Amino acid sequence: MPTARLRIAYDGSRFAGWADQPGQRTVQAELESGLERILGERIDLTVAGRTDAGVHATGQVASFEYGRELPDRPAERLNAVLPRDLAVLEAAPAADGFDARRSAKARVYRYRVLTSTVRDPLEERRALWWRYPVDRDLLDAAAAAVVGNHDFTAFTPTQTEHVLFERTVDACAWEAERDGVLALRIEALSFMRNQVRVLVGTMLEVGGGRRSLEELTALLNGAPRDAAGETAPPHGLYLTEVKY
Amino acid sequence: MPTARLRIAYDGSRFAGWADQPGQRTVQAELESGLERILGERIDLTVAGRTDAGVHATGQVASFEYGRELPDRPAERLNAVLPRDLAVLEAAPAADGFDARRSAKARVYRYRVLTSTVRDPLEERRALWWRYPVDRDLLDAAAAAVVGNHDFTAFTPTQTEHVLFERTVDACAWEAERDGVLALRIEALSFMRNQVRVLVGTMLEVGGGRRSLEELTALLNGAPRDAAGETAPPHGLYLTEVKY
Repeated sequence: MPTARLRIAYDGSRFAGWADQPGQRTVQAELESGLERILGERIDLTVAGRTDAGVHATGQVASFEYGRELPDRPAERLNAVLPRDLAVLEAAPAADGFDARRSAKARVYRYRVLTSTVRDPLEERRALWWRYPVDRDLLDAAAAAVVGNHDFTAFTPTQTEHVLFERTVDACAWEAERDGVLALRIEALSFMRNQVRVLVGTMLEVGGGRRSLEELTALLNGAPRDAAGETAPPHGLYLTEVKY
Repeated sequence: MPTARLRIAYDGSRFAGWADQPGQRTVQAELESGLERILGERIDLTVAGRTDAGVHATGQVASFEYGRELPDRPAERLNAVLPRDLAVLEAAPAADGFDARRSAKARVYRYRVLTSTVRDPLEERRALWWRYPVDRDLLDAAAAAVVGNHDFTAFTPTQTEHVLFERTVDACAWEAERDGVLALRIEALSFMRNQVRVLVGTMLEVGGGRRSLEELTALLNGAPRDAAGETAPPHGLYLTEVKY
């Protein structure tokens, strides 16, 4: 069957995450209903990253098979029926067998942290407000320690769908996005549930001197979940890119 | 009476503007009620820029006289009782006679325009989405024409509280804030109601080739209101700084 690919952006604040859940407003449900309106058939989406409630996306990718024809300018038509906190950046036919989840070669996430002493109303639900001192060198060292192949058992909920806890992080680095906002860029073939958010929570503890770099390194060898730091809140997290 | 000065930021989306209006949620009312809670007396605020509904601020300034004492760490105490879309960045005693409105030497506004072909859910209510082509050179020339002393009658509502329509714009320039977002920075001792928004609407018409630079120049000599362009929407506008 012919396959299409969507590149998607959303403000996650008012969504109960990506995945369909009865009675909840989800990105998947809004998109599938928009697609049904413009295609005249029921569509099942496959997604690259199943983001949780509150998590944003600037470069999410989804794919679907369809039986009829794709109309002209499908992205424009879709955006005309989608709510304002969700937009399709690109919609185009894809190679047969393209699968947004399985064909992905890497996912890139960004986690934004507001480090000013006062909160910023315009960053509400857009960044974690972290009012404690952080040492940028320690943060950078923590990020460097995360790069590579590790057992991330400590960084995902104990009750989980995962069987294998080993992952390879290809890139992990903090940058100053602007005065008062630090952002982590992290890239891997795949991530486990909450993995980026627990990594961020733990790195901030290292940056604040509340946990040593050695402790973080030890955690990356398969320590139990409750040994790692707090799960940073969803509203600082953005899925920015999926590579194929 | 002792006087204090506040530097304030807010997301204007859910406010009916700065100024008190019965039955409406305003920045002034939220702040005055927060001040009354921490000071134990009724406060009347004077503000540098009376922003309209939907307009944001990252550097608004207000002042007030008080009869009792300012508590320790007043900004922190205020922020603890203020709603999440409003924050006090600084609160400190000011020189006797300081008046946020009359003592101001310049106001700086920023107007953000999203120029991408697709809307951006994360810029919803944060920038004007302008999907038509704009020529950056024409925009720059339009901004340069605005600098200086002009009769801005065409750029404020005909039914208005103003008596004098002459103003001097000290700086007016577009910059690329990031890929797909242009921002105007404009500075003057004072602005008339809607002035920045009508200027932006008219400059975008010049940038799109729908109005000539000569027409803009002619408008700056006191043409009637209906000769100028559309009023750009409030949600792209930010009061960023007040100079004293």
